[in-house]
Amino acid sequence: MKRIFVLGSTGSIGTAALDVIGSRPDEFRLVGLGANSSVGLLARQSGVFRPPAVWIGDKAAAGRFVCGNAAGGKGVFAGPESFPAALEKSRADIVLVAVSGAAALMPLMEILERGIDVALANKEALVMAGGRVMKLGAKNKARILPVDSEQSAIWQCLSCNPSRVFERIYLTASGGPLRGMSVSDLRRAGLREVLRHPRWKMGRKITVDSATLMNKGLEVIEAMHLFGASCDDIRVVVHPEAVVHSMVEFRDGSVIAQLSVPDMRIPIQYAFSYPDRLENIAGRLDFSRLGRLNFEKPDFRRFPCLGLAYAAARRGGTLPAVMNAANESCVAAFISGGIGFMDIPAVVSLVMEAHKDRGDGSLEAVFKADAWARQKAEYFLRRRRK
Amino acid sequence: MKRIFVLGSTGSIGTAALDVIGSRPDEFRLVGLGANSSVGLLARQSGVFRPPAVWIGDKAAAGRFVCGNAAGGKGVFAGPESFPAALEKSRADIVLVAVSGAAALMPLMEILERGIDVALANKEALVMAGGRVMKLGAKNKARILPVDSEQSAIWQCLSCNPSRVFERIYLTASGGPLRGMSVSDLRRAGLREVLRHPRWKMGRKITVDSATLMNKGLEVIEAMHLFGASCDDIRVVVHPEAVVHSMVEFRDGSVIAQLSVPDMRIPIQYAFSYPDRLENIAGRLDFSRLGRLNFEKPDFRRFPCLGLAYAAARRGGTLPAVMNAANESCVAAFISGGIGFMDIPAVVSLVMEAHKDRGDGSLEAVFKADAWARQKAEYFLRRRRK
Repeated sequence: MKRIFVLGSTGSIGTAALDVIGSRPDEFRLVGLGANSSVGLLARQSGVFRPPAVWIGDKAAAGRFVCGNAAGGKGVFAGPESFPAALEKSRADIVLVAVSGAAALMPLMEILERGIDVALANKEALVMAGGRVMKLGAKNKARILPVDSEQSAIWQCLSCNPSRVFERIYLTASGGPLRGMSVSDLRRAGLREVLRHPRWKMGRKITVDSATLMNKGLEVIEAMHLFGASCDDIRVVVHPEAVVHSMVEFRDGSVIAQLSVPDMRIPIQYAFSYPDRLENIAGRLDFSRLGRLNFEKPDFRRFPCLGLAYAAARRGGTLPAVMNAANESCVAAFISGGIGFMDIPAVVSLVMEAHKDRGDGSLEAVFKADAWARQKAEYFLRRRRK
Repeated sequence: MKRIFVLGSTGSIGTAALDVIGSRPDEFRLVGLGANSSVGLLARQSGVFRPPAVWIGDKAAAGRFVCGNAAGGKGVFAGPESFPAALEKSRADIVLVAVSGAAALMPLMEILERGIDVALANKEALVMAGGRVMKLGAKNKARILPVDSEQSAIWQCLSCNPSRVFERIYLTASGGPLRGMSVSDLRRAGLREVLRHPRWKMGRKITVDSATLMNKGLEVIEAMHLFGASCDDIRVVVHPEAVVHSMVEFRDGSVIAQLSVPDMRIPIQYAFSYPDRLENIAGRLDFSRLGRLNFEKPDFRRFPCLGLAYAAARRGGTLPAVMNAANESCVAAFISGGIGFMDIPAVVSLVMEAHKDRGDGSLEAVFKADAWARQKAEYFLRRRRK
């Protein structure tokens, strides 16, 4: 029986994870729920699972949290500083980190500091400080189990080789909702088109990242850290059907691929059950109905974010954190309707060019670069807002 | 340094294997060559590799074998009964069994009897007596390493799961050279069309089997024995590009696939180097150029041999051996121009229907059934010859 804490339980990954946990009562027990501010849904989840710990990031929102259980209020924790106490109370074996954006980094470090395994669905934390995160996990013997469908696929494919030595990683990309558009159409693309993702139902931030291919760029950097790869070992392949979730090529030219229906419950369950595999929860592929699978090169010209991510990966230091922070600002501005779709790569690029300081490798330097980049992005965004 | 004996060295798999061995002098040493009657090529191979043992199955052909080396004639062995002596002389660690047809069964048993690992490129031996072959290998701790590209793929995919428990095997089939033909065109199909295989360059027997889909049927039975599967766990999927060499589905709905360029040197090298992987010898896939991969259901009506193989697999006993022997007779008749393409499944089916005796599980019963089936096939073939 594995005790699981779900951090970010009200998002799309969090709710899928609760579905997995709820359907495997002999295998998993939910021992903690965490969310930032969606206290209505959090209260309903808490009423169903009755975990010993409930954590709410936003203190103001916590005041509105009404729930009879969670140890009669003794299990409810509010505010960022109370997260470690919630974690201790839960006595979790695994924490699913399904918070989106840079906000995941501090809780992730707290979890690894305590030697607790992490099922990681957030990519930004690794993009910002992958070296430090991986080192802390290794030092405290806490495993970092990938949940992202692509990273889970790579992880599964690598296990075919006892030495785990590989030649190349092929990271597949659905290409997002705007795959076929010309640059002039991309300039005019609105939020509604962008949120119409053809394969995956996800949160807004990641769906926008998926349309710009920044999501794939973040995954390149994530995979570098998770699997000890250089960015030149990682190739992005556009595969619109999103059936092949990624591939690994070995020295002898043999390529191992992982495929499944596009449902996040499959990689979530695998991260929880690893090294075992449990009963299928989300449907099986039907190869006789599948028809054809397409593969093509990504277009770095129409989707400049992918190239920006490779540039950040190559230069390293605090540049990936700067790119990520600028991207978060731009995506928020695009969602609120202030800027055009192609302003996202334009502003991220301007912020990256303006960044000179490589940092000293400390977490403080990362946070400083993050704050600097958000401020700089705001400056450039102001001049572009409609 | 692994010492390798190549049995069937003058065929397409054998020559590819010598290419692999010759290009890896630090890893492999050729210690034996074996062929039935192609003594010209065998002499040239022997001159290049200078193995301690050369075996020639056909005694009359052996008389024509001229070669200065092979320990000055002391290393040359002729006739079926001398195979064990050739084997002992070679002191091989692995024997590649690349002889086609039922003729591989006796040498295979001799090798396993001595506890020597086998790299198996022949499918008929497992079809005829898979249970006994696997048991003998297990008893003498001799590994049976698959060389067939599909079986090698399944073997590689299975290693992703520590317990090797699987839900289903997807055996891919290129569909052969006559994939798109109507039944009436199939009836008229001649040897020339059949031998024009779109993906693999192989011997005549296997190319005809590939066109009838009997090759895939034999592989279904082979996979049952190699991986402990029931025939209902194995599905055939037509995949004309022959890039995905097979797939395994696990309990959780996750499918692992193996892909490579269609070149037999890749699975041959893997069988020799297992569990390691050596440098690529035969080219790499280029996913940006690959375009599309197609998957479709096989048509059991146009290609009845596939259904016959499932029927034989289900009934077991000596029926798979009967089917195989009848098929060998029919393919030989088709190659020599005596019968039409659709006579192959028709006659195999008649022989299978006429077969009543299930045998007592002994090797003698298998050989008796094999001889009976060849005689019966000749009877039906006589009435159909043009």
